[in-house]
Amino acid sequence: MPPTDRIRDHAGQGATTVAAHRTRRRLRADRARQLADLLRRQLLDDAFPDGTLPHEDTLAADYDTTRNTVRQALDLLRAEGLVARQPGIGTVVVARKYAHGLDRLMGLAETLHEHGRVTNEVRTTVPVPAPAPVAERLRVPPGADVLYIERLRRLNGVPLSLDLTYLPLDIGTALLGADLENTDVFRLLESVTGRPLGHAEITLEAVTADAHSAAVLEAPRGTAVLMLERLTHLADGRPVDLEFVRFRGDRIAMSGLLHRSL
Amino acid sequence: MPPTDRIRDHAGQGATTVAAHRTRRRLRADRARQLADLLRRQLLDDAFPDGTLPHEDTLAADYDTTRNTVRQALDLLRAEGLVARQPGIGTVVVARKYAHGLDRLMGLAETLHEHGRVTNEVRTTVPVPAPAPVAERLRVPPGADVLYIERLRRLNGVPLSLDLTYLPLDIGTALLGADLENTDVFRLLESVTGRPLGHAEITLEAVTADAHSAAVLEAPRGTAVLMLERLTHLADGRPVDLEFVRFRGDRIAMSGLLHRSL
Repeated sequence: MPPTDRIRDHAGQGATTVAAHRTRRRLRADRARQLADLLRRQLLDDAFPDGTLPHEDTLAADYDTTRNTVRQALDLLRAEGLVARQPGIGTVVVARKYAHGLDRLMGLAETLHEHGRVTNEVRTTVPVPAPAPVAERLRVPPGADVLYIERLRRLNGVPLSLDLTYLPLDIGTALLGADLENTDVFRLLESVTGRPLGHAEITLEAVTADAHSAAVLEAPRGTAVLMLERLTHLADGRPVDLEFVRFRGDRIAMSGLLHRSL
Repeated sequence: MPPTDRIRDHAGQGATTVAAHRTRRRLRADRARQLADLLRRQLLDDAFPDGTLPHEDTLAADYDTTRNTVRQALDLLRAEGLVARQPGIGTVVVARKYAHGLDRLMGLAETLHEHGRVTNEVRTTVPVPAPAPVAERLRVPPGADVLYIERLRRLNGVPLSLDLTYLPLDIGTALLGADLENTDVFRLLESVTGRPLGHAEITLEAVTADAHSAAVLEAPRGTAVLMLERLTHLADGRPVDLEFVRFRGDRIAMSGLLHRSL
């Protein structure tokens, strides 16, 4: 099938005014976004195992669109840090994105164990008086000390997330001697308390990283981070772990199942 | 309690070298991020009902930190488009962020009905030959026509999301006469097929908006979007709706519960 650009929709018909030209450009941007979304999905599914995307002409034919639209779609993915253009080779995958499950409460090392080793650079462990919103959520008296831990988490040496964690002091103190560099806090919580974790309330947001967070994550300035706030409870209902996690948007996605009826 | 800056942790002790100065600055950035995360949470909980944040001195006392750290934290939230500084008044809330549930499959109008009216600007409805990844997921033959719909969705007139939707043609055609401007596709799917929806596979990502998407969403260039890919099935298992949704990161968060055991 020729690249008839059938993804095109409410397009102008060869009008030559500036307005029509602007409309056509807007439409190409719409088509590029459409294609970029389909290719982003393929990247997440690791659908290009040799690390190279098909040639632009092939993509144009496969997606029944123009080469210009393909170029613009690849530009979008390049701006997201997922692919790069390599002279003589074409468009190559530069960032592998991993899916973190939304169906079960799991730590990062647990989730990614098939993909490699998670290590944690512990930037801070310090008792701090609990600010009111922390005290309330962890159900400790306002101003009572809690343990604050800050970790930069890596998979096979590559930064994935910056985690800010608040723990009640009794549990936190017991964690201090543990191997925080190589172990999920979830696992340590279960071993220190002798109880399984129960549930967590989570909130996910997309936030543009400030300059300092981007630098710590070794990401470009202005990078998008997937912010996870998670309040984790033991199986007996006690809240024991309040976390604010900044995942690099180019490296982590969250996947799960939703049901219509509860 | 005086602002003793106890959130401070591995701080230098008055050293005067450039390195120590740099360390101190890095630490203030760390503390500002910590505080910004707590305030962002308060904003999401609508904890400032009069739309004004406490004075910087009050925040410094409440969070046991310095006024400089408070200022830097507020700068972060300003950069995220959540607050603004208003002369003579202080720091005011400028964007209300709404929580979209992760616990049950719901349309946007259903989710946000207490907050106001969702309207949809239908930018495109057009049959397109299904690209391979769409055909595969909707289980139609590759190249068979599917209905493509593009909508800009608003709450009380304010842009929330840009939605790209693919539907099998039989179902899509039945939707064409429906009131897409005022009705969730989910509701229309259930009424057109006479069947309830079942489940959806979702993936959430944080992506920096390209210039064109940001313009459509009336958001600042470089804004972070919460990307949702959602493949929705009828209760009988048939996949009927593949969507790529860009939520404005400053206006939508996703919230839910995760459990440790399945």
